Amino acid sequence: MRIAVDVMGGDHAPAAVLTGCLDAVPILGDDHTLVLVGDEQVIRQGMEQAGLADHPQIEIVPTTQVIDMGEGPVAALRSKPDSSIVRLMALGGRKAGDQYCDVVISAGNTGACVAAAQMSMRRLAGVHRPGIAVTMPTFHGPVVVCDVGANPEPRPTHLHQYARMAAVYAEQIIGIDKPRVALLSIGGEETKGNILVKETHQLLKDDGTVNYIGYVEGRDIFNGKATVVITEGFTGNVVLKLAEGLAAGLFKTIASEIAETDPEMAMKFGPVVKNIYRKHDYHEFGGAPLLGANGTCLIMHGSSESRTVVAAIRSAISYIEHRVNDRIIDALDDTSIPQTEGAA
Amino acid sequence: MRIAVDVMGGDHAPAAVLTGCLDAVPILGDDHTLVLVGDEQVIRQGMEQAGLADHPQIEIVPTTQVIDMGEGPVAALRSKPDSSIVRLMALGGRKAGDQYCDVVISAGNTGACVAAAQMSMRRLAGVHRPGIAVTMPTFHGPVVVCDVGANPEPRPTHLHQYARMAAVYAEQIIGIDKPRVALLSIGGEETKGNILVKETHQLLKDDGTVNYIGYVEGRDIFNGKATVVITEGFTGNVVLKLAEGLAAGLFKTIASEIAETDPEMAMKFGPVVKNIYRKHDYHEFGGAPLLGANGTCLIMHGSSESRTVVAAIRSAISYIEHRVNDRIIDALDDTSIPQTEGAA
Repeated sequence: MRIAVDVMGGDHAPAAVLTGCLDAVPILGDDHTLVLVGDEQVIRQGMEQAGLADHPQIEIVPTTQVIDMGEGPVAALRSKPDSSIVRLMALGGRKAGDQYCDVVISAGNTGACVAAAQMSMRRLAGVHRPGIAVTMPTFHGPVVVCDVGANPEPRPTHLHQYARMAAVYAEQIIGIDKPRVALLSIGGEETKGNILVKETHQLLKDDGTVNYIGYVEGRDIFNGKATVVITEGFTGNVVLKLAEGLAAGLFKTIASEIAETDPEMAMKFGPVVKNIYRKHDYHEFGGAPLLGANGTCLIMHGSSESRTVVAAIRSAISYIEHRVNDRIIDALDDTSIPQTEGAA
Repeated sequence: MRIAVDVMGGDHAPAAVLTGCLDAVPILGDDHTLVLVGDEQVIRQGMEQAGLADHPQIEIVPTTQVIDMGEGPVAALRSKPDSSIVRLMALGGRKAGDQYCDVVISAGNTGACVAAAQMSMRRLAGVHRPGIAVTMPTFHGPVVVCDVGANPEPRPTHLHQYARMAAVYAEQIIGIDKPRVALLSIGGEETKGNILVKETHQLLKDDGTVNYIGYVEGRDIFNGKATVVITEGFTGNVVLKLAEGLAAGLFKTIASEIAETDPEMAMKFGPVVKNIYRKHDYHEFGGAPLLGANGTCLIMHGSSESRTVVAAIRSAISYIEHRVNDRIIDALDDTSIPQTEGAA
């Protein structure tokens, strides 16, 4: 198994990503190779400092360009062909030949990762559009939300496939037993929602292979009603970023309110927050897979730390060992999903 | 000015709503009439107990049916013609004749309220589709979000109008000086988002009358970047409910974590939470207007308390006194908004 990591992508790159990669060496199997993509000098220096110079299970793919987190994806991919993201994603495609990597991992510019991955990897047999599945820690355990931004203009058939693919992923990798799959909408009744949601609802209701529980609303994402939430990429992305921003803002507000009310209590609040973050830690899930890509691409949060990288590499190994893509092909391989679309 | 309130709508109705109405009597002007819509016996009893029996500024419109919070709106409106919501919304339409009310207010089933209001009131001149504008308390002051569910399949021209209407409302009623209007999207770059957002972005960029600051992401709703956030009704509704659910869940989680860590500290955390709720209190905004309706309809949160009702009545009076609908007509009355749609 060959696992490639973009050493240059993420808010704390290259240091935190490189450290994470090198920390993960002990969890590699004998037949695993770690392929580090990025600035050769930085990587060699890091390997030396870690006492891993010329480690037989580490390869370097040197690159000279970096796509910044804020860059427009399309223009960036075009103008930076030797960027770590473009080179990384190429390794995940069949055209990579001997260099082919079973898994590619990046914490860089999400838009650029998705676009480059789609170009290099194409899709699994039968998949209309890949979707990103993020695992969110909630008060009732992890919830997988798909799609969170790969496909902002989906059709009902796309969402239907996300339901099947995300259920496979939730069960095999996140360890959710018999995932309860729900469709994100704006009310419980069948008459609520938009056309996309109503049409997808019909497809899911008629699909005996998915444990479909119906609609959930925004407030239900965190209350344990569902363990897999299906939505189109636009709303999914808003949900993800809103939850992050609101949680961070609330902790800050509570901390400053406590500081105002009772400075002594403020000293004790820090450890409480730390405990909560420890119990609801997105870092432990490593990365979000681009489900449906013909390859395995894990996209990490921009603020990933070294331990996130270790978790992503562990999850990547599990992804391959559990043959998730084969299971996805199996899950999609029936005639109950209308194949209304061509290859485009 | 005639102000009608649905006494039967809301989680705490009729008691809390009726109490709120009667508590609001002192803020009524001499020429104001409060029209209470609901169970006559309940209303008369409440008025007597409050020492307001036969108050000259209170009228009763007796109704015999109630639409429950969870009922499907379309079926409910059809099967309950004498429900408080149907009768209330009829009072807000021009067909009400002598009974016409300048403002109608309900904390009942939102879907039923919107549907009934649209049927009875129709639209202001030039308005394509009404939208609900909710004011959310954030760490940086109130933010108006429009639409949160009236229009789940909007066109760019609809969102463009929401920007202008919500800016008028934010300035006149919420007291936000020169509102910074943003469009909710999934990235800062112009290439991000879906077709709806990109087309609306062009309309807003070219509109010299709106203080448009561009895209914001989900995380920005609570960080003070914008004071008016425009989105389609589906995502807006998800945002609203997600924020509520997440905030409630977080407070609960923190409280139980504190109780586990330090029971003494738990005693002190209650007042801290109360302070935060007091500073970020959605009740003070009363209700969310259905902007663009040819009349004034305020929709309150289902969990409204008596003080929410008082706030809604105060806000309703301000709405009429500031002639918000006239200002909306003025704001929409130019040729820069493409009038591509007919009256339907």
